[in-house]
Amino acid sequence: MKHGLVIIGGVAAGPKMAAKARREDPDVPITLVTDEAVISYAGCGTPYYLGRTFDQREKLLVRRPEDFGAQNKVTMLTGHRATQIDPAARTVTVVELASGTVKVLPYDQLGLATGARPFVPPLPGLPAEGVFTLRSVTDAFAIDDYIDLHHAHRVVVVGGGYIGLEVAEQFRERGLEVTLVELMDQVMPRFDVPLAHAVKAELERLGVEVLVDTKVEAIDVDHRNRVTGVKTSRGPVSADLVILSIGVRANSELAREAGLAIGPTGAIAVNERQQTSDPRIFAAGDCAEQRHLVDGQPCWIPLGSTANKQGRVAAVNMTGGHETFPGVVGTSLVRIGQLNAGGTGLLESQLVRAGHDYETVIVPQADRPGYMPGVGEVTLILHADRATRRVLGAQAFGPGVVDKRIDILAVAVTAQMTVDQVANLDLGYAPPFSPALDVVITAANVMRNKLDAKTASVTPHKLLAEPADPQRVLLDCREVTEWNGGRLPGARLMPLGSLSERCGDLDPSCAVVVYCKGGLRSAEGYRKLRRAGLKKVRYLDGGITAWCGDVEH
Amino acid sequence: MKHGLVIIGGVAAGPKMAAKARREDPDVPITLVTDEAVISYAGCGTPYYLGRTFDQREKLLVRRPEDFGAQNKVTMLTGHRATQIDPAARTVTVVELASGTVKVLPYDQLGLATGARPFVPPLPGLPAEGVFTLRSVTDAFAIDDYIDLHHAHRVVVVGGGYIGLEVAEQFRERGLEVTLVELMDQVMPRFDVPLAHAVKAELERLGVEVLVDTKVEAIDVDHRNRVTGVKTSRGPVSADLVILSIGVRANSELAREAGLAIGPTGAIAVNERQQTSDPRIFAAGDCAEQRHLVDGQPCWIPLGSTANKQGRVAAVNMTGGHETFPGVVGTSLVRIGQLNAGGTGLLESQLVRAGHDYETVIVPQADRPGYMPGVGEVTLILHADRATRRVLGAQAFGPGVVDKRIDILAVAVTAQMTVDQVANLDLGYAPPFSPALDVVITAANVMRNKLDAKTASVTPHKLLAEPADPQRVLLDCREVTEWNGGRLPGARLMPLGSLSERCGDLDPSCAVVVYCKGGLRSAEGYRKLRRAGLKKVRYLDGGITAWCGDVEH
Repeated sequence: MKHGLVIIGGVAAGPKMAAKARREDPDVPITLVTDEAVISYAGCGTPYYLGRTFDQREKLLVRRPEDFGAQNKVTMLTGHRATQIDPAARTVTVVELASGTVKVLPYDQLGLATGARPFVPPLPGLPAEGVFTLRSVTDAFAIDDYIDLHHAHRVVVVGGGYIGLEVAEQFRERGLEVTLVELMDQVMPRFDVPLAHAVKAELERLGVEVLVDTKVEAIDVDHRNRVTGVKTSRGPVSADLVILSIGVRANSELAREAGLAIGPTGAIAVNERQQTSDPRIFAAGDCAEQRHLVDGQPCWIPLGSTANKQGRVAAVNMTGGHETFPGVVGTSLVRIGQLNAGGTGLLESQLVRAGHDYETVIVPQADRPGYMPGVGEVTLILHADRATRRVLGAQAFGPGVVDKRIDILAVAVTAQMTVDQVANLDLGYAPPFSPALDVVITAANVMRNKLDAKTASVTPHKLLAEPADPQRVLLDCREVTEWNGGRLPGARLMPLGSLSERCGDLDPSCAVVVYCKGGLRSAEGYRKLRRAGLKKVRYLDGGITAWCGDVEH
Repeated sequence: MKHGLVIIGGVAAGPKMAAKARREDPDVPITLVTDEAVISYAGCGTPYYLGRTFDQREKLLVRRPEDFGAQNKVTMLTGHRATQIDPAARTVTVVELASGTVKVLPYDQLGLATGARPFVPPLPGLPAEGVFTLRSVTDAFAIDDYIDLHHAHRVVVVGGGYIGLEVAEQFRERGLEVTLVELMDQVMPRFDVPLAHAVKAELERLGVEVLVDTKVEAIDVDHRNRVTGVKTSRGPVSADLVILSIGVRANSELAREAGLAIGPTGAIAVNERQQTSDPRIFAAGDCAEQRHLVDGQPCWIPLGSTANKQGRVAAVNMTGGHETFPGVVGTSLVRIGQLNAGGTGLLESQLVRAGHDYETVIVPQADRPGYMPGVGEVTLILHADRATRRVLGAQAFGPGVVDKRIDILAVAVTAQMTVDQVANLDLGYAPPFSPALDVVITAANVMRNKLDAKTASVTPHKLLAEPADPQRVLLDCREVTEWNGGRLPGARLMPLGSLSERCGDLDPSCAVVVYCKGGLRSAEGYRKLRRAGLKKVRYLDGGITAWCGDVEH
């Protein structure tokens, strides 16, 4: 290769591509172009720097461009913006930002790692001082400096996705007053209702004001054009700092203008080898699409983990090798205060949209044996295909160890396992780590019972969405002390031990929903009620633990 | 069914079988026979009770026999020992231990959950007061009472398997002086050498005296037949308490005497439905064999987790349903002090014995981004089949989160994934939980490089086992400050940055082993040395982090 490789992008996929290409081919010329001054930074770490989980800026900067260039024999064009690709001539035009100098770089293989950028809505009042997006370390440092300089203490975070949540939590951790504003009717908009409900409750416990179903209509500024608040559909909220974390968009314009195929998601279309529609141009990281392994559809889930894997695959293919990146299953994690949450596979909103015939269970369980210190609860939501019994998706939340359960299920979803296979997984068992039957196993077994029609249940959000039915009976089968601590509005108490006798009071044709703390006793209650001759019985998935409506005291 | 089910065993599989059978069939008569007074106890929790990780005895007793019987409509014959099965007559003979009364119980389906018992070698001096095995809660309470009554403070634990390790660690936690004696040349005898090395080092850091390669020859007692120490092949060790944790044996005698097939492991042979050679007799839990899913061979890995799963499967089949238990992959976990350790799939000792053509990598890596508080290292050992590239086994150890990585790989091994598939797994990424590229992904990529002959490496224990070669050069490619902190005996320092220039000093035909801290720089060093014309180059898997020989200071 005469001209060698040109790689555009310096955060995750770009440097990975360059370093791996160098290992694959010690001699090929490699040039890396980035419009930033820094490379390889830990973008995902910025909320934790802002929250003072750690306070050294340099920890976010993994390596210096000059060191990276020297170690990997890569020509580093930092502060250079790529403005045009000519696929026919195999050149990239770049502009040195400081001088305005234009250079034309010829390539044999081009690697695109142009990333993504925050979406900024066209709000009245923008641009304004004190209104930021958070994407790069430069953004983080600017926000940090602004807080110090202006003694900012009243923050509005717009958008309740991962970044918004992490920023809100971390600003609270730093002692700031925080209001989180979300347009949709829940934080983590596409996630299942019980998880979003738990996340909102934890934010509120931390002292974050959470406004859902709330539209930001304008940014308010003072005479110096410095932010003083936001106008929302619920009224004004004062602020001396605003973070817009509404979403991100793939930086696919350069590719689009060069005539490369763009996928339905708006990101650059690539094949399994990370090759674009031009066989000499590869794309990796946040600018590129992925394939979702559950439904086989193109998707766009920009994450540093995926960027690194794709960068490696692109590098091997750009240097004459052959490697493939099969796709993703949408695994994600977040920690908010004492609450861990995450998911993998398809969310319920995606299953509904795609018309899947699926079944859901919700199972709360301790993450370790009850006698071990530090034991925490994990509530697991599992979705399975009714016909194939395949696990389609899982989400989990709670103070217990969530990430392990999500990763176990990420592998199971990737391997297209059925719930029957998941129920018999040989997961590690020792008291410091897990109970004899992990919540993953239990949830799979609960799902088997439901798929086999041995039980029938209803999720809390589906129950809440059902039309009011005066004939419907809500039965609480817990003990009276639990009942006294809070119950579902309108419920009747019938502890499990006396359920079989006392349910004779009920009209056999009435619809019954029986619930307990987490679902175990109410599944037993379901059996008792059915045996007592009741026809329309369901139990409440996840019991009062996963309940996302009001509780009566 | 007229006579219904008789189930023998009351700890894990037995009660599970009874409870699940009741859910499957509300009417079938069920009788549970156990020679103990308690049921469903947390046997795995006993070391933690003895170490005062928790101090309430009742926490080990999950439920009372009378409650269990009433809730599940099960006739509970506690304190009854089953002495004979007559498969032709379909009866079990039981003896009430308190009265000596003999009863003959007819059955339609019989469930065996007779468990396992500790192996006690025929040592001179046995039986003696103060010498115990630890299996049941009764054992634990007896040990606890003995410590209190006799102010025992000097313990010898015989056997360095899981129970021995946990007991040694927990007794140390309680403030006792502990010596652990192991016959083999390492603790965790069948595990890979670097893991066993790390466990031994951690025990010693905690203040446990560890004697490997040491045979216990006799128990020393005083005139009251109370233990005073053990005679070992290395001399006497004083003790006022001895725990024998040499291993366990399946309680398969009852089955054997009834003519049921016993497997090559000595446990009861069962098919996938947990059915013994008599179709009306099922077995589950520690008394039964499993199939190992990696090699398809019968194995016997007694664990409470497996017992619960098998109990469920047996119950469904005993009540007219159809369910199967496919097998296990040998997943196990242990925590010793600050060190977490575990494994899944085949161990190196098993791969060698079975003649597998396998490749190994050892990769230490932080479990979270370096800027997050609480970050800990995990060293991952991965074995893959050279031809199929399937992951055959994995082990991990370190202060970081080990259990998650082992469970991820347990699922991958079960799904027969190749290292290429594992390298692209979509594992959850967020700074509080994991780095962008998890050690699981990194290790799979290191393995791909090795399988593709892009690099060549040697594990520390294989290097230590190689015959002395005066021509062999050990190159330390770290920085001088790291070198000054300790290095491999006889190594030469050549930091990576100057390696290409300085390696000209070496005879091109000499055998070189290059190492660094964990393997990253030395893999790069490998490439540099090869490009410089050296023919026989390898790097050291896991670097000095996983080294299990002497370190020179």
